[in-house]
Amino acid sequence: MAVYTDITDEELAGLLADFDLGQALSLKGVAEGVENSNFLLETETGRYFLTVYEKRTREEDLPFFLGLMRWVAGRGFASATPIADRQGEILKRVRGKPCAIVSFLSGLSVRRPTVAHCREAGAGLAALHLAAEGFGLSRANTLGQAAWAPMFRGLTKAADDLKPGLAAVIEGDLSRLAAQWPKGLPTGVIHADYFPDNVFFASGKFAGAIDFYFACNDALAYDVAIALNAWCFEPDGSFNVTSARALVGGYESLKPLSAAERAALPALAHGAAMRFFLTRLADWGATPQGALVKPKDPLEYERKLAVHRASHDLVLFDGPLA
Amino acid sequence: MAVYTDITDEELAGLLADFDLGQALSLKGVAEGVENSNFLLETETGRYFLTVYEKRTREEDLPFFLGLMRWVAGRGFASATPIADRQGEILKRVRGKPCAIVSFLSGLSVRRPTVAHCREAGAGLAALHLAAEGFGLSRANTLGQAAWAPMFRGLTKAADDLKPGLAAVIEGDLSRLAAQWPKGLPTGVIHADYFPDNVFFASGKFAGAIDFYFACNDALAYDVAIALNAWCFEPDGSFNVTSARALVGGYESLKPLSAAERAALPALAHGAAMRFFLTRLADWGATPQGALVKPKDPLEYERKLAVHRASHDLVLFDGPLA
Repeated sequence: MAVYTDITDEELAGLLADFDLGQALSLKGVAEGVENSNFLLETETGRYFLTVYEKRTREEDLPFFLGLMRWVAGRGFASATPIADRQGEILKRVRGKPCAIVSFLSGLSVRRPTVAHCREAGAGLAALHLAAEGFGLSRANTLGQAAWAPMFRGLTKAADDLKPGLAAVIEGDLSRLAAQWPKGLPTGVIHADYFPDNVFFASGKFAGAIDFYFACNDALAYDVAIALNAWCFEPDGSFNVTSARALVGGYESLKPLSAAERAALPALAHGAAMRFFLTRLADWGATPQGALVKPKDPLEYERKLAVHRASHDLVLFDGPLA
Repeated sequence: MAVYTDITDEELAGLLADFDLGQALSLKGVAEGVENSNFLLETETGRYFLTVYEKRTREEDLPFFLGLMRWVAGRGFASATPIADRQGEILKRVRGKPCAIVSFLSGLSVRRPTVAHCREAGAGLAALHLAAEGFGLSRANTLGQAAWAPMFRGLTKAADDLKPGLAAVIEGDLSRLAAQWPKGLPTGVIHADYFPDNVFFASGKFAGAIDFYFACNDALAYDVAIALNAWCFEPDGSFNVTSARALVGGYESLKPLSAAERAALPALAHGAAMRFFLTRLADWGATPQGALVKPKDPLEYERKLAVHRASHDLVLFDGPLA
């Protein structure tokens, strides 16, 4: 939940004066996205989202993110499309901060995905990977495998504070991931944050994805692995292989994985759990005690790490998938 | 900004099953209202607000609030109307908490009201008072003049912490307000929280009011006094008598005040400043340090109190108003 920027009616009118969207009829700050301020904007011509980019989104990355959203929407993928002003600009400014107006995407996210949702989500992710093919810009994954060990250097005390002895276990994971990280897999543009709250459904069918602000270039199967962690764990911390095989099966219904990609998924999921564990651990330490907006619990991903530590070398995705 | 309750798609579907509103198409938590959780709900039949009542709203008061919203909307006042389910119920439950679905009200609130906005806001408040006439329920003002001295008993240290010596000044105000509080003025249902963020405009004209969760029965002119404090102070802390006379003039364009009401306005505004000072002071002390959601600054109303302390006995609203 986040609305960091307050926009006055005059500032909004000034922004809209550059567009052919008519006058503003209503503006509501919405509790969506944790990095930026999001507003649901109603104008005389329809409904839109106005996103104001706060300091955690680097301004130099915005042409990549907004260009990607336009590119995949233009190729038929259901996602919010940035709207250009009369000069053709999509990256605008309000109250001194970068912002963009994007189209409104209907749909509901699910909090407790079923096996059927996992299958749909997998197919949606494949559709995104296919739609992103040919996009002309690229962006390195600043939170990829090479970044984890350096990130953890400042967090060893935080890890041991979270759970005594955890730092040594994480060091072991990091060494193993560095030594065994799958190489040479097909790469492309990945969403990199394909969590249930970023995916919309309508009548049980995939209806689109939002929040492209971690998108980057990396192994496509790594995006599948991020999704396995985000979608296929039960509330009790167990990994649901039925859901996982459904998600991969859904993905393969549109875009088959190679044998090497399938075999790499458990190791990639181990690494994906490390990436989210590390950022959550960093956010956990940085948030003041008693804050009303709680950071996400790093222990959730510590438990996922433990599951993948044990299954790193297992064969989970062989044969025909559900 | 507040979204305290998370609603799953299954819980939402269960709630909507009682209504004739079709299936949910989207649900967005919105940063509106500080006491309750608010969601913008899109269904197959249109757009609505779903409000989930959190613990600060007493459940036994909800029939008054929701009944009032229905009553004034039924009499042509532009406000969100609670929607009845197929059984005729408007007060529903989701996730064990009371909730209601209300119609969507378009419009923009203004952050820096002009004199023209103050006039429109005054007329809107009069329209609300007129529309509320004849409403069959009543609710005592639990934050009225009689409550202030008891409220302050637990806050003297907080006042002196805020500003050394302030507690004694507030005690003086409370004695004066108790001795000189205007009596015998016309009463009725008042909004009691008629602030700029609760009032919508369209093309500069009053377009409706929301957030009736402090509404109660009290002197109608006291509601005007609350609005004077909320709308007519400049950012530098000065009281803009031009705006104030425009607000009262707008009110009188629909509902003339008696001479006694006009004369009482400065004293009522002094009391209204006390009411908001006290609740902000209480919230200030109750919010943990470093919380991301900051409570409203009690010093803003301490400064307004000082202004009214000096003008309590002045004649500000005589003669023809702007």
